[in-house]
Amino acid sequence: MAPVTPDLRVCFLGDSFTAGVGDPEHLGWVGRLAARSARAGRPLTAYPLGVRRQTGVEVAARWAAECAPRLSGEWDARLVVSFGVNDTTLEDGAPRVAPERSVAALDTVLAGARAAGWPVLVVGPPPVADAAQNARTADLDARFAELCATRGVPHVAVHAALAAGPAWTAEVAAGDGAHPGAAGYAALADLVWPHWRAWTAEADPPPSTPTPPGGAHR
Amino acid sequence: MAPVTPDLRVCFLGDSFTAGVGDPEHLGWVGRLAARSARAGRPLTAYPLGVRRQTGVEVAARWAAECAPRLSGEWDARLVVSFGVNDTTLEDGAPRVAPERSVAALDTVLAGARAAGWPVLVVGPPPVADAAQNARTADLDARFAELCATRGVPHVAVHAALAAGPAWTAEVAAGDGAHPGAAGYAALADLVWPHWRAWTAEADPPPSTPTPPGGAHR
Repeated sequence: MAPVTPDLRVCFLGDSFTAGVGDPEHLGWVGRLAARSARAGRPLTAYPLGVRRQTGVEVAARWAAECAPRLSGEWDARLVVSFGVNDTTLEDGAPRVAPERSVAALDTVLAGARAAGWPVLVVGPPPVADAAQNARTADLDARFAELCATRGVPHVAVHAALAAGPAWTAEVAAGDGAHPGAAGYAALADLVWPHWRAWTAEADPPPSTPTPPGGAHR
Repeated sequence: MAPVTPDLRVCFLGDSFTAGVGDPEHLGWVGRLAARSARAGRPLTAYPLGVRRQTGVEVAARWAAECAPRLSGEWDARLVVSFGVNDTTLEDGAPRVAPERSVAALDTVLAGARAAGWPVLVVGPPPVADAAQNARTADLDARFAELCATRGVPHVAVHAALAAGPAWTAEVAAGDGAHPGAAGYAALADLVWPHWRAWTAEADPPPSTPTPPGGAHR
């Protein structure tokens, strides 16, 4: 079967926000971004790989096994990573994951993707209906941004803009306190869009013999 | 964070059709089915796990590791499985996977899901723009239906109806010869819908201590 050209394939790794939980239209920000990209002349195969409740440590534990069968091959393979809100959730009075461990988890994914030859775009964690948690999440995202700058990886901060805009916070408050609906996800997709456009407009990575991370089966 | 209730979580395992390849709206049949289910009062978390070019053997190799982190937990966890077209694709003059191996792959998934306590719905493979391959796929799907009947698992045959209807074949012919566009995927979602509705209307499986397949991390 002939591939749909141009052949861009992107794994979207993350948590419930990446999975679009709460969106009755079942597009989330990932589906909206992908559809807009196609309309703008940059179609892609989007593999949404968000898992509810997962922290960065949990995402880092599965990312390689799940990306290998989807990205290994002769195409423009890329990775979008977004996590952090579950890391800063309190359990027994402490965050589920300490910030330095969350940063180390992100660095694990970045290093593995670099070794495999897959460009990465990092999308920062959004706010929820809990001011204290949002402060922890914003701090963590600043650390993510710092790491990304060090590694030469683009990072999209969405936290402050979503907290300031009307759609996200209203839908989160009307929903389960964490997840927005269709308008909130559309707002998030809009924030990512210019960064996505610049990132996917870059030349394909140079031909190489990529080293698939553990778990590759072909 | 409070869960979105009622808490139904479904993994959709398969190939490029399950991934919705070719749909500019990035919903595919999975997104359309999930959105319709939500509108009908049965919201769910849908985890789309289709991977392009994968045969049933390849799906069976990854299904457990990918479903465990998504389905293991205290909710109504289910599995929709759909593959077969890549199995019947010729490579060097022979199908990529012999029919008995495709059937064995499906049975592997059914047995694992039964052990884990996850109900399964099987959706048969659709037609492409190749009459000879379609004949092989229809034969394979008849074997799938037979296995499902033996195992007491619902099976939805979509091949003949899609081949006879206008949307699917026209879009496949206008596309890459395998994948439809939005209307074709809508037609497929419509065919699955009554079976989905009956299947998800069933009482939740009885409380049990499920045995997650290999790879479970919680």
